[in-house]
Amino acid sequence: QNIRQYGIEIGVLEPGPLNSITDVGEVQVGHQTMIVGNHIRTGVTAVLPHPENIFQQKVPAAVYIENGFGKLAGSTQIKELGNLETPIILTNTLSVPTAADALIDYTFSFEENRNVRSVNPVVGETNDGYLNDIRGRYVTKKDVLTAINNAEDGVVEQGNVGAGTGTVAFGFKGGIGTSSRRLPEKMGGYTVGVLVQANFGGVLQVAGVPVGKELDKYYLSDRLNESPDGSCMIIVATDAPLDARNLERLAKRAALGLAKTGGIASNGSGDYIIAFSTAEENRIPYRATEAVQQKSVLRNNRMSPLFMAVNEATEEAIINSLFHAQTMTGRDGHTINELPVDSVLKLMERYER
Amino acid sequence: QNIRQYGIEIGVLEPGPLNSITDVGEVQVGHQTMIVGNHIRTGVTAVLPHPENIFQQKVPAAVYIENGFGKLAGSTQIKELGNLETPIILTNTLSVPTAADALIDYTFSFEENRNVRSVNPVVGETNDGYLNDIRGRYVTKKDVLTAINNAEDGVVEQGNVGAGTGTVAFGFKGGIGTSSRRLPEKMGGYTVGVLVQANFGGVLQVAGVPVGKELDKYYLSDRLNESPDGSCMIIVATDAPLDARNLERLAKRAALGLAKTGGIASNGSGDYIIAFSTAEENRIPYRATEAVQQKSVLRNNRMSPLFMAVNEATEEAIINSLFHAQTMTGRDGHTINELPVDSVLKLMERYER
Amino acid sequence: QNIRQYGIEIGVLEPGPLNSITDVGEVQVGHQTMIVGNHIRTGVTAVLPHPENIFQQKVPAAVYIENGFGKLAGSTQIKELGNLETPIILTNTLSVPTAADALIDYTFSFEENRNVRSVNPVVGETNDGYLNDIRGRYVTKKDVLTAINNAEDGVVEQGNVGAGTGTVAFGFKGGIGTSSRRLPEKMGGYTVGVLVQANFGGVLQVAGVPVGKELDKYYLSDRLNESPDGSCMIIVATDAPLDARNLERLAKRAALGLAKTGGIASNGSGDYIIAFSTAEENRIPYRATEAVQQKSVLRNNRMSPLFMAVNEATEEAIINSLFHAQTMTGRDGHTINELPVDSVLKLMERYER
Amino acid sequence: QNIRQYGIEIGVLEPGPLNSITDVGEVQVGHQTMIVGNHIRTGVTAVLPHPENIFQQKVPAAVYIENGFGKLAGSTQIKELGNLETPIILTNTLSVPTAADALIDYTFSFEENRNVRSVNPVVGETNDGYLNDIRGRYVTKKDVLTAINNAEDGVVEQGNVGAGTGTVAFGFKGGIGTSSRRLPEKMGGYTVGVLVQANFGGVLQVAGVPVGKELDKYYLSDRLNESPDGSCMIIVATDAPLDARNLERLAKRAALGLAKTGGIASNGSGDYIIAFSTAEENRIPYRATEAVQQKSVLRNNRMSPLFMAVNEATEEAIINSLFHAQTMTGRDGHTINELPVDSVLKLMERYER
Repeated sequence: QNIRQYGIEIGVLEPGPLNSITDVGEVQVGHQTMIVGNHIRTGVTAVLPHPENIFQQKVPAAVYIENGFGKLAGSTQIKELGNLETPIILTNTLSVPTAADALIDYTFSFEENRNVRSVNPVVGETNDGYLNDIRGRYVTKKDVLTAINNAEDGVVEQGNVGAGTGTVAFGFKGGIGTSSRRLPEKMGGYTVGVLVQANFGGVLQVAGVPVGKELDKYYLSDRLNESPDGSCMIIVATDAPLDARNLERLAKRAALGLAKTGGIASNGSGDYIIAFSTAEENRIPYRATEAVQQKSVLRNNRMSPLFMAVNEATEEAIINSLFHAQTMTGRDGHTINELPVDSVLKLMERYER
Repeated sequence: QNIRQYGIEIGVLEPGPLNSITDVGEVQVGHQTMIVGNHIRTGVTAVLPHPENIFQQKVPAAVYIENGFGKLAGSTQIKELGNLETPIILTNTLSVPTAADALIDYTFSFEENRNVRSVNPVVGETNDGYLNDIRGRYVTKKDVLTAINNAEDGVVEQGNVGAGTGTVAFGFKGGIGTSSRRLPEKMGGYTVGVLVQANFGGVLQVAGVPVGKELDKYYLSDRLNESPDGSCMIIVATDAPLDARNLERLAKRAALGLAKTGGIASNGSGDYIIAFSTAEENRIPYRATEAVQQKSVLRNNRMSPLFMAVNEATEEAIINSLFHAQTMTGRDGHTINELPVDSVLKLMERYER
Repeated sequence: QNIRQYGIEIGVLEPGPLNSITDVGEVQVGHQTMIVGNHIRTGVTAVLPHPENIFQQKVPAAVYIENGFGKLAGSTQIKELGNLETPIILTNTLSVPTAADALIDYTFSFEENRNVRSVNPVVGETNDGYLNDIRGRYVTKKDVLTAINNAEDGVVEQGNVGAGTGTVAFGFKGGIGTSSRRLPEKMGGYTVGVLVQANFGGVLQVAGVPVGKELDKYYLSDRLNESPDGSCMIIVATDAPLDARNLERLAKRAALGLAKTGGIASNGSGDYIIAFSTAEENRIPYRATEAVQQKSVLRNNRMSPLFMAVNEATEEAIINSLFHAQTMTGRDGHTINELPVDSVLKLMERYER
Repeated sequence: QNIRQYGIEIGVLEPGPLNSITDVGEVQVGHQTMIVGNHIRTGVTAVLPHPENIFQQKVPAAVYIENGFGKLAGSTQIKELGNLETPIILTNTLSVPTAADALIDYTFSFEENRNVRSVNPVVGETNDGYLNDIRGRYVTKKDVLTAINNAEDGVVEQGNVGAGTGTVAFGFKGGIGTSSRRLPEKMGGYTVGVLVQANFGGVLQVAGVPVGKELDKYYLSDRLNESPDGSCMIIVATDAPLDARNLERLAKRAALGLAKTGGIASNGSGDYIIAFSTAEENRIPYRATEAVQQKSVLRNNRMSPLFMAVNEATEEAIINSLFHAQTMTGRDGHTINELPVDSVLKLMERYER
């Protein structure tokens, strides 16, 4: 269950109907979860900005890098051209090449793309090597294509699924999480949705409550037992008509939401945020006869409510990933326990939430 | 009083002896506070990385820009050359040119610099125009030089002083705040100190407690009564031997501490972080016969404890600024109330802090 | 005279009618030249993107920093917000604060701006301290305002004028130079104009001819007699409807034009490029009732001809600055000789240009 | 033959003994050339900063992106951590994933790396899809490993080899090219070496001579017959003790050398520069007991001669690639002619080179 379903609210804005990245436009999410034997605990998550041929109908996009100890594919072209031309794939660190190759296959599979000879596959990753035999590189191109084919709008499965199957956050079992915020009509009524692959550390706070300290499980505790490394991939979608510059600013604010959960963007954490706009009028056709495109662009001075929205949705998506993930045993008998939700809820009560 | 003096701890690391940026090396801080008539509520704060001729003995430095709606002088040269060659001055937005000019005077005042014909003055600012008649540009070069001359190590005055005289944070009176963290010896025993000029908004959290919501004073509350704009200037000092690249990474983590106070880096907020290292062995002489300098450089994988330290010290410095600032009436009878510390402390108790 | 008036063409595209930055939209340029006694050899050049209140009608803009050893004011806000709200002032390094202060005065001088309390003055600079008593800081706010008041469209004076009065390029007298290119109609018919303040070094090439080597005056010649330091400020204007992202890409290509003159962006050279678009439909009103603005945006894949245009215009503007500048004696009897145009023309002939 | 072997010198500095990137430290280069049937015209080039286990002995490194329309793998981690931990692979655009995967295999093949679970493969690319059936993705992991195994110091094969097998530059057959410069002892005696994969366009200049115009083959000629797109990958090696910051500055200057050949960094060109230092004292061990590393760092004010060196070596490497490449027929009968060296040499003579 989402934390909100226990009556605990994060932030001051309202979520969208599903409290999910799929509240935004026609965004779709699909997973391929891989739990095999004692050693494979990994998977793939696909986020599609819209269900059509993305290469032919690119979307404005930006990447913000909070900490670049990571292997994200595709960031430099997004930055240069300001757009995204494939689904976004999340997987484990060492499967980025396979996923990138699969995105090329996927793009070539459209008849309309038959003469395309350059594709910018976008693949994010976190390192699930504690639970997963990551060196085995078990993710195949077929797994990636399956995740894409599984993509749908509606409720997004969270926790130990897809790219979150083997991840760890704040010493507890992490995973996929999602959340959204919808602005009041007078602020444009726009929706911001966030999906995270949580796999990092620090000193866990839940809605401001010092859960990590209370449970004596945090980075730099005396026992120094928790590495803060790992990574956090954050996908941000909005239907607000933002150009690449303001999408980058929006992406940057997602890191502030991560901070509120107690994340510190540690040296070994690859914390990347990819943001895109689904505003249909701003899609960028691959081919166009017109040299000049008419675009709708939200003014700078209307951005602050969106900044608040992405901040809150990111915080809540990360907490949701912890609330959904379940205890997992994997490689070499390694076990990561789930967040003890009952204890946390008691703490929340004690701390007046 | 600092929040810590009320028994409330922020984070898990210990502060340095003064819980101040002056815990770091020979860092000095000086203020010039300007409260005149009903309309002047401004001032100048100077931070000196060391008490000698900084132009002749530059320090490694970096700037990280969380939100660039601001007029900071000097950032591009710091980024290119990786060093700082003047004191850092903080003042109001429209007095940046005056302060920069004064830093040139200051640099030229050293006999040793008599042939210098290029100086990179570093001046940060926030907009105190609600309480201060900012258009009057009352800060003079003499005020700036006075702030530098006032600089000393030891306890730093906080609240309505220097560049914090007229600032507003979270709808309450903001100001200058400082805090520090000292790492355990096994992590190097390094100190990180932070000084802030707090002048921004969002939804105030104090040590995780939702103070802004409880006091019904926050951005995007129904009444929309609080602008989150303004700015937050953050100065980070450390004695850890960091090169410019890792100083930039350190600076970036200060923004995460700001996030924990409820800051959102709103569109109109100029949030800049300047970080420098005081490690003596790495100072950069203006003139040197040797082409190659021997430097001590902390390894990347030792950075995470420092990231934690700057995160905590920034959060605490901002809260300290609010705890020290007092109600102020200024321009056109505008009044900004101080944070109601008693009420906040009761909230802290109720919320089990 | 411009080099083109001697029959020598640079590049393959055609210049605009005046071969000047003033060929673009309503761009205006004004100079204040300061030659006083034996020691003052400096000045101010102002570039106005349009003749109205720029603060109220901002223009899309970007800054690209080829080498940041410089004191340019205003870059971080341009980058964050993607626009320019004052004229661009060029002057000497140590007069940047004065010029910034004057731009605030200028902005406040408009009745319509009477409630404005934040201004982002944009001031570029190069170091003219060899010929000019730069430490004297003789430029006053009045000089800056005079340059702005002198601004007009039409032919731009080049050489030893304004901010180019005391500059040195490739060991010869440098100064202000300008040039433009107009694309054929089938590529949109857009104009790109460039104005430079040339004050840097390397190994001079004129239209590919190794003039520096032939005249035995170049960086790293045996006698090492020429410092490549100084700086080159480059202003790029276009009427193409470019957003900030593509303006930054355009700015970046100006550096390639500088390279073709033999510039190397040496360590001590502050090489900055500021680009803006004059497309009227994309001006950004300070106040607007609409949250969303309709903009015309040129597609990425139409940029290459503009890249070529800015490359050529920058090369030619730098060469023009050398062709116009005249021998100057200044501070401490320092003399910098003008480029020996007759010898250069003979070289051009010998080298088949 | 290199252009220099025809008696034509580019720039004013001397090349190293081999005029090759392999003049630097223990740098090694290997190719795998793939010419099969009528349709496969591609390959792989590997550059090794040293012959040992690079993951265990990382080298300081930086990436500069002149134009990010490309799929380079690994740049964000290089930027964040300032080092390189694999060989650099160059290949075609759509084979980046395969090459990245092969670099993981390669890294895992060292017994010492048996517990490594995170690798940052660095792969650059250009699009050889005019001559090569690039959609076929014929490059295999084995091809990549073969290129690495073929790596050796000594003379580097240039032209239609490795990743240059199917590339096109300025409308002529491009390919791999290399060059180097050695500074005089009084400037440190350092060597800078460059290797390019030339596949881009513009208006060809050879040592300043307008070859493209003379041969009537250039971008934006009336017939518009030459696309400037493609890409240029540039690898820069130096034995100067540069940290990541100054390596990035060095990389940036390689783009200026590209400009001197007539390149314009067109919209569709992925122009990336990767620079590394081979200075042994600055290698970064994967594991170290010491938290602080002693490093030698060249002072900023000694950089300009290196900037000149990389500028010249890049220009010459690109020209060398054209001088070595030979006419090639590939996919769908497409033929790209080699640069007519005899005609060019006559032009050089006519233009007094």
